[in-house]
Amino acid sequence: MIYFDNSATTAIDPQVLRTFTEVSTKIMGNPSSLHSLGTTATRLLEASRRQIAELLGIKAEEVYFTSGGTEGDNWVLKGVAFEKRPYGNHIIVSSVEHPAVKNTAEWLKTQGFEVDYAPVDAQGAVDLEALKKLIRAETILISVMAVNNEVGTIQPIAALSELLKDKPTISFHVDAVQAIGKIPVADWLTSRVDFATLSAHKFHGPRGVGIVIAKSGKRLVPLLHGGGQEHNRRSTTENLAGIAATAKALRLALTDEAFKREKVAAMKEVIQNELKKHDKVVLFSQKEGFAPNILTFGIRGVRGEVVVHAFEQHDIFISTTSACSSKKNAAAGTLVAMNVANKLATSAVRLSLDSTNNMAEVEQFLTVFRQIYQELEKVSG
Amino acid sequence: MIYFDNSATTAIDPQVLRTFTEVSTKIMGNPSSLHSLGTTATRLLEASRRQIAELLGIKAEEVYFTSGGTEGDNWVLKGVAFEKRPYGNHIIVSSVEHPAVKNTAEWLKTQGFEVDYAPVDAQGAVDLEALKKLIRAETILISVMAVNNEVGTIQPIAALSELLKDKPTISFHVDAVQAIGKIPVADWLTSRVDFATLSAHKFHGPRGVGIVIAKSGKRLVPLLHGGGQEHNRRSTTENLAGIAATAKALRLALTDEAFKREKVAAMKEVIQNELKKHDKVVLFSQKEGFAPNILTFGIRGVRGEVVVHAFEQHDIFISTTSACSSKKNAAAGTLVAMNVANKLATSAVRLSLDSTNNMAEVEQFLTVFRQIYQELEKVSG
Ligand SMILES: Cc1ncc(COP(=O)(O)O)c(C=O)c1O
Ligand SMILES: Cc1ncc(COP(=O)(O)O)c(C=O)c1O
Repeated sequence: MIYFDNSATTAIDPQVLRTFTEVSTKIMGNPSSLHSLGTTATRLLEASRRQIAELLGIKAEEVYFTSGGTEGDNWVLKGVAFEKRPYGNHIIVSSVEHPAVKNTAEWLKTQGFEVDYAPVDAQGAVDLEALKKLIRAETILISVMAVNNEVGTIQPIAALSELLKDKPTISFHVDAVQAIGKIPVADWLTSRVDFATLSAHKFHGPRGVGIVIAKSGKRLVPLLHGGGQEHNRRSTTENLAGIAATAKALRLALTDEAFKREKVAAMKEVIQNELKKHDKVVLFSQKEGFAPNILTFGIRGVRGEVVVHAFEQHDIFISTTSACSSKKNAAAGTLVAMNVANKLATSAVRLSLDSTNNMAEVEQFLTVFRQIYQELEKVSG
Repeated sequence: MIYFDNSATTAIDPQVLRTFTEVSTKIMGNPSSLHSLGTTATRLLEASRRQIAELLGIKAEEVYFTSGGTEGDNWVLKGVAFEKRPYGNHIIVSSVEHPAVKNTAEWLKTQGFEVDYAPVDAQGAVDLEALKKLIRAETILISVMAVNNEVGTIQPIAALSELLKDKPTISFHVDAVQAIGKIPVADWLTSRVDFATLSAHKFHGPRGVGIVIAKSGKRLVPLLHGGGQEHNRRSTTENLAGIAATAKALRLALTDEAFKREKVAAMKEVIQNELKKHDKVVLFSQKEGFAPNILTFGIRGVRGEVVVHAFEQHDIFISTTSACSSKKNAAAGTLVAMNVANKLATSAVRLSLDSTNNMAEVEQFLTVFRQIYQELEKVSG
């Protein structure tokens, strides 16, 4: 099996799973408990938080645990919106955000908030000038992802941080779910970023665990009210095994980070160079300005699903852009925002590579690709 | 070690953990993916949902997975409130709800909803006549827990269902986090109950997984907007290993359910009978009308923490009522609502038994109790 669908989800690392089972077996207390089982649990919880903070170069009290990327995005958007409603009701998100951001923004509209979608250029990168024009006195929140999940565009977070420097009353959120380990942390976690979202299962961690980074002093209403865990900002009995496993996964993901990125980029380049030789192939991802692991392309006139299923016959797993949109049979929202014609957009498939992949898999992929291309070229009309 | 703090959290069952690790290792797909890895994942997801539905006697499409009891309570309260706002803004919750319900209700007040707290009697049971009087034309939601977490009172869900029979426009939510496995499902999941909340770690399942039961046709706004998972009602990449493990845990919890309840009740009775013999002991939990596993009592004039720590010296783990409130050093909300004087309420400690406990542990507990009582009696003033 060749798994080139790592942006949908990754396999849990065996070491990470071992941490999960060890903590599950050995540490049974509820961190909220007064007795020593609670204290032991709390100690591991806070050690995990500190480790993550160190890896990200932030303070421990800026790390909050959630159930995943979706909860993180919902929490930050709704939390900031409800927190800041007295000061304004205007939110800007990019037009290529994940549905966890977009659909949350859409819901906020039903609650009296106004939402503008910042347009992107032909590469899927946010148009900063256009975004700047959308800012008004009532703007309370801007949310722009670090790496796009459908085509891999790296968003200009540093430039955006610069632009927002003299606008301290606007909260700045970055969905970094597809960025962690793929581009340097410094590229998306600037000092101007107030909030960021991560999801453990995208970096070989467990499902159902996420991280929200909330910089010191940055307020937001809780999404989960209750017993007061996470400094009264995100209540529920802490998923200690999942949290410790996530700390482990993050450490592994960031170990030899640059080397892994180069390895992945090299694989992407080989595939890209080969694909380019085929007339009917359209590349939606490039090298410059895109994450090293994501390569989205289409064969003109052939629907993405057809290509996915053709590869599957050869035990190769790729995706029609995002996992979320794939069952809905819709053109990728990012490609539509990039002004790709609808018919062409429905041809898109996404390869998402990982450092656990290797060049032998790339070669096998390309062998199969040539075969599939030949077959499909005939029927593509 | 003797662990009598099972209402705070339970140890994960080794079989449940095995399911978790097996699914984590063998099934790596994202259920949303179009390819066969996605299909395999979806199949297990739906099999888990069906199994849970069968165990609870409901339809598979009435089972939704969440990150725990707190998310479930937040989702139902906020989801119903925002869904039904056009029809009314009045919510009734009992005065002995868990903070996941109470603090959510308090937040909803800041969003224009009105909340009434239904009073309880001296046993902590909701006063149905008083609750009835609180109902008005604008009432959209009533939330009453099945079993109280601080003293174990079983709430009159069946009688409340009867009372609400001719009021179909009011949504009825039951927080059953402390009820599952402790009292029969039929006692809290009546045909009138629209929504119910469960949390896996309370029945030897994994942390970070919960269930919301939403009866067919009962609408509520999502708390987690995004990619459209769970029939577009609760988005995020599904925690498949956690979900399959939860299905397993629920099956185990409900196997020989009546037998386990009797075992636990017998242990409670032995403890209760012994405690009663001590002048300064006040029992806050009784036999009739209370869950068989929870026994809350106090030693007059001795703070609960002191008792907890005294038992801890003997490797016996109990709690000051709820885990959530224990670190806050506050009197148990339930006891206050039961009209127990504040000073007496701060003496409360909770034993929460489990079928994995045994009579030998009970005897050891009582031996230690007698010793502690003698020592503390002197200082209790
Ligand atoms: C950019 C982005 N944001 C958010 C999410 C949601 O993450 P999760 O599935 O962990 O909720 C995803 C993953 O699907 C994503 O790619
Ligand atoms: C009655 C009740 N409801 C809700 C919860 C919250 O559950 P969780 O910790 O899984 O979020 C608890 C547990 O603490 C509880 O006892």
